[in-house]
Amino acid sequence: MTEGRTPHSPLLCDGSNATVRNPISPDGRTVPGERHTIPAREGRAVHVNAGDRLLILNPKGHQVCDFFALAYGSPAEMLSMEHTRTALGKVYVGAGDTLVSNLRRPMIEIVEDTSPGTHDILIASCDHARYQKLGAEGYHDNCADNFRMALKAIGIEPIHVPSPFNIWMNIPVGKDGRYAWTAPVSKPGDHITLEAKQTCICIMSACPQDMTPVNGIDTEPAELVFWIEEGA
Amino acid sequence: MTEGRTPHSPLLCDGSNATVRNPISPDGRTVPGERHTIPAREGRAVHVNAGDRLLILNPKGHQVCDFFALAYGSPAEMLSMEHTRTALGKVYVGAGDTLVSNLRRPMIEIVEDTSPGTHDILIASCDHARYQKLGAEGYHDNCADNFRMALKAIGIEPIHVPSPFNIWMNIPVGKDGRYAWTAPVSKPGDHITLEAKQTCICIMSACPQDMTPVNGIDTEPAELVFWIEEGA
Repeated sequence: MTEGRTPHSPLLCDGSNATVRNPISPDGRTVPGERHTIPAREGRAVHVNAGDRLLILNPKGHQVCDFFALAYGSPAEMLSMEHTRTALGKVYVGAGDTLVSNLRRPMIEIVEDTSPGTHDILIASCDHARYQKLGAEGYHDNCADNFRMALKAIGIEPIHVPSPFNIWMNIPVGKDGRYAWTAPVSKPGDHITLEAKQTCICIMSACPQDMTPVNGIDTEPAELVFWIEEGA
Repeated sequence: MTEGRTPHSPLLCDGSNATVRNPISPDGRTVPGERHTIPAREGRAVHVNAGDRLLILNPKGHQVCDFFALAYGSPAEMLSMEHTRTALGKVYVGAGDTLVSNLRRPMIEIVEDTSPGTHDILIASCDHARYQKLGAEGYHDNCADNFRMALKAIGIEPIHVPSPFNIWMNIPVGKDGRYAWTAPVSKPGDHITLEAKQTCICIMSACPQDMTPVNGIDTEPAELVFWIEEGA
């Protein structure tokens, strides 16, 4: 939190939690199998080569992961939920689905999902304005800033904050098109396996939402863990 | 169409229909009541003062309008469908709803809608890659380029192409979250009235989609008409 710098803007990277100081490495590269923790309320970026797999583990089970991906070397190409909805013809995604970029190129395939498969591709990342509207006072950690800080920590400046793939987020859409903000149905130890269809920078935020039940009915944000597995 | 410049990129303003040469005025300003036609397959940008209303008329009834808005003087603030879905708690919009920006500020209120109210806020604008996937050869007019060209025509360069408000586009979402690409249910002469909640540049594209029935079962893109009415 940066005292005195108000109002915080959803257009600026003005958060200051440890995300910006603790990248997994200077360029986001890691070695296969090395496990990294994303502390509660923080974010991390990781370089994933085409064909490699990124495993994201949900130790407590109730924690949402806001997930983003940028094409390596071409950060204007981003994983895009609106293009993915068009490509898949549906508003949900699950194992077997390939998520595409704003160039409509395959970027991330969901190859394994141990949870019941409830994820969200409709809702914007939380940001300063979201928490202000919910009644937060002062700065509140948020996924939009975690996205920008995780990238800043490895020397990348994104053009904007794209709409995220909200892993384990449970936003059921009713027959009338209205939806509810409900707790995840994932369980402790669930993981999801994502295969990079092109070399990407993947960004994950352990969503700091503690004013609605999207991270569980106890509204207690928790950590996430991730690692890379090499492709065959 | 620019021969020899391939591949066209969804990241570039590389279209060349008349949109880029025929702005309604050098800065997009107009006088109340003056009617402007958006020829089939083209786009236009218009300056709308806070409190004024933008009326968009669908003469043939079956034509979709991809609609966008940027904050005047601050084009990084854009009308955002993902933030609007969050604000409204639903995946459809209709008369009485206020659409918000990526700063979660009110931007556009739908104050009147003579159609049955079927619009889309889920699907990305068509672009070169979309038409390639549908089998088009060479360049095909598209809403992403129309958005960029309409802005270029009045001297504005957008940061990216946001997810559009697809007026009259009929993409029914089924109980299983899958949707269909179907013809509009609007009728000839329908119009929609949008009130600017802040001073905006509004961009409209008469969607050139002629390879799916989103612009009617005859897949014949048509013109749109718009004008401004001063607020009370």
